[in-house]
Amino acid sequence: MLQSTSLETVERLGTGVAELSGFADGDRPGWTREVFSEPYRASRTWTADRMRQVGLEVHIDAAGNIVGRLAGREPSAPALVTGSHTDTVDGGGRFDGIVGVLGSIEAARLLQESGTQLERDLLVVDFLGEESNVFGLSCLGSRCAAQEMTPEDLERRDYRGVSLGRAYTDFGLDPSTLSDVPWAKRPLHAFVELHIEQGPTLEKRGLPLGVVTAITGIERFIATFAGSADHAGTTSMEDRRDAMIAAAEAVLAVRAEGCGAPTHGVATSTRVESESRSPNVVPSLVRMYSEVRSVDSSWLSGVKARLTAEIAAKATDLGVDVGFEWSTDNTVVQADRGVQDVAGAAADALGLPWMPIPSGATHDAVHMASLAPMGMLFIPSKNGKSHCPEEWSSTEDIATGVSALVATLRRLDGTDTRPTD
Amino acid sequence: MLQSTSLETVERLGTGVAELSGFADGDRPGWTREVFSEPYRASRTWTADRMRQVGLEVHIDAAGNIVGRLAGREPSAPALVTGSHTDTVDGGGRFDGIVGVLGSIEAARLLQESGTQLERDLLVVDFLGEESNVFGLSCLGSRCAAQEMTPEDLERRDYRGVSLGRAYTDFGLDPSTLSDVPWAKRPLHAFVELHIEQGPTLEKRGLPLGVVTAITGIERFIATFAGSADHAGTTSMEDRRDAMIAAAEAVLAVRAEGCGAPTHGVATSTRVESESRSPNVVPSLVRMYSEVRSVDSSWLSGVKARLTAEIAAKATDLGVDVGFEWSTDNTVVQADRGVQDVAGAAADALGLPWMPIPSGATHDAVHMASLAPMGMLFIPSKNGKSHCPEEWSSTEDIATGVSALVATLRRLDGTDTRPTD
Repeated sequence: MLQSTSLETVERLGTGVAELSGFADGDRPGWTREVFSEPYRASRTWTADRMRQVGLEVHIDAAGNIVGRLAGREPSAPALVTGSHTDTVDGGGRFDGIVGVLGSIEAARLLQESGTQLERDLLVVDFLGEESNVFGLSCLGSRCAAQEMTPEDLERRDYRGVSLGRAYTDFGLDPSTLSDVPWAKRPLHAFVELHIEQGPTLEKRGLPLGVVTAITGIERFIATFAGSADHAGTTSMEDRRDAMIAAAEAVLAVRAEGCGAPTHGVATSTRVESESRSPNVVPSLVRMYSEVRSVDSSWLSGVKARLTAEIAAKATDLGVDVGFEWSTDNTVVQADRGVQDVAGAAADALGLPWMPIPSGATHDAVHMASLAPMGMLFIPSKNGKSHCPEEWSSTEDIATGVSALVATLRRLDGTDTRPTD
Repeated sequence: MLQSTSLETVERLGTGVAELSGFADGDRPGWTREVFSEPYRASRTWTADRMRQVGLEVHIDAAGNIVGRLAGREPSAPALVTGSHTDTVDGGGRFDGIVGVLGSIEAARLLQESGTQLERDLLVVDFLGEESNVFGLSCLGSRCAAQEMTPEDLERRDYRGVSLGRAYTDFGLDPSTLSDVPWAKRPLHAFVELHIEQGPTLEKRGLPLGVVTAITGIERFIATFAGSADHAGTTSMEDRRDAMIAAAEAVLAVRAEGCGAPTHGVATSTRVESESRSPNVVPSLVRMYSEVRSVDSSWLSGVKARLTAEIAAKATDLGVDVGFEWSTDNTVVQADRGVQDVAGAAADALGLPWMPIPSGATHDAVHMASLAPMGMLFIPSKNGKSHCPEEWSSTEDIATGVSALVATLRRLDGTDTRPTD
């Protein structure tokens, strides 16, 4: 264990993860604490209490974010912001987001314990509902803080027909004032988010820390293949227009693009749905759901064009029509160069080996990047697992991340983060 | 129009198709008249009346088949049997099965009209529920007649949990006496079924008639692929164990086997189901539903072995586990050589061009083949379409099929159909 992490920090982080994981939907697998759910509501009292216990001044903002303030010497100076989220995906784990919230609270405690008061206010934020949810919209709290929640978003409906706006109301928040977040409307000095990597890179390289370079862009698409519903027993192979064959070719084409990515690029087809339930009819209507991610914008836009052309050409050969619905879930967001440099220097000073690393997942940091110079710190994920019950990071690794976070916040406090160009 | 078909026959067949198509479920697409449904129940009164109108002596047997008897000169001689079914698939058409029932009734009328009494009784049968149904069991009536309905079959349940046995009871039939079918327990001289081809071969060759050589065997399987549920954004392509990729490779392998069939062979994957609904998780559990059909038993068993090996090898390369559940829906059933010869000679005598043709679909004839020398006559299907609202055969083509059926029955009546070896 590194000198910079105390036994008390390790213990507090360990019990924090254990106590927070007690708030979970008993009817679902893993540790399920979805936004707006009862377990989530109950957990937030625990989180706010935890913030108060370490001396933070806590309020819930209009967007539902829990904000804990550690006062600086110059309350009028642009604040430092850190934090993450405590909601989980259905069947998820105990670390994604949680590490960043518990770690930020612990960072605030350590700063006070060390007797140094920062120049600036430090805001520790537990952002409301970061994960993909039943409304198909992630990063609810940071999205509102960044003034990016639209009236159309509030009209999104879940599978029961309940709107997102109604879900806010039922949760005790006013959907008409969600963007009225004073702390986010003031100039901010920097935002730093501590998070688990959710991938295997750091573990494979034996490194305790990653400094994020960029957060992936995500292009999603649905390809709809329309062939001919012929009798599967009587129609010869050459007379068929089989939509399933076109979809299978497309699944492999998507994979081939991901495998050919020059830097970090991945491509995944998650579902293939056939309209027909009959075992004796050639599939005539098949939908494929796919996504492509990269931190390389130009590759991402190239893939989009290539996949559209490749999939359409193969379908045409098979006599199958195909239509595409592309949607940009996220454009590529670069981490601030200055924040990366400060985080790297802080890690070096602590003697922590680290690497620059892209983030293949999205985070609240994507939205916070529009409000402040943004950076992220990653700690290792066991076997790269995430969004599943097996998700695991050791308490020692979390504590190491916290020490890097503290050192980064200290350095940022005294650094001019304004862009130089 | 051929000399052998009268205007009256064409008119009776045309109005028959039109009147029977009036019994359909208005809430479903196409002409839906599923077994045990109210439209089916109502249609059966019409069918029995139609039989009585042409002078047949009608009874409903214990299996629910409507049986019309045209008495022969020697009632003790093994009877000739012809017929088909009047139920349809969900969203189906107006000709599949119906042509064989209306055609057999018309054949009986024409025989009487011509003033010749056959030596043998002619039984015209409308078999109960031939199509695939919600219980996953086809050919209910002919299966019972052939003593092939098992107690386990009666325990099959539909999506609401209702058993097949209960469905029989609700329909007014006693599930404990379904196999008590006296006409099927007597020796039978031959069974001939007139049917639409449900494929494009006759139309493409411009032929009005096909004499069926064999009815396809059907091997169905479910392949279950198990990989690893990793984050689709953070897990590199080479670290994945993606069950969807293995399934896509398998879909293409199934197709390749069908395309490589030496005689009539087809292979179809109808569904690919992914357990995960999340757009950002690598698919870890995917099921593929496929079937392979051929009238060539040895090719069929070879395909089964090859596909199992090929799909498993590709999955293993991808780090994905795969399990197979194979089930034989039908073994290959050969049409009786003697009946084929008689049918071909009858067509030749009428000046009807015909071809020997395999049946890629199953029929009541599969079960009747265990009770009597079996043969089938096919008429063309427009564009090869079947099991859909576009299913269509011209009344003239149906009438031509009826003339071939009459000529075949006449010749069979005086032919020794006992196997010679």
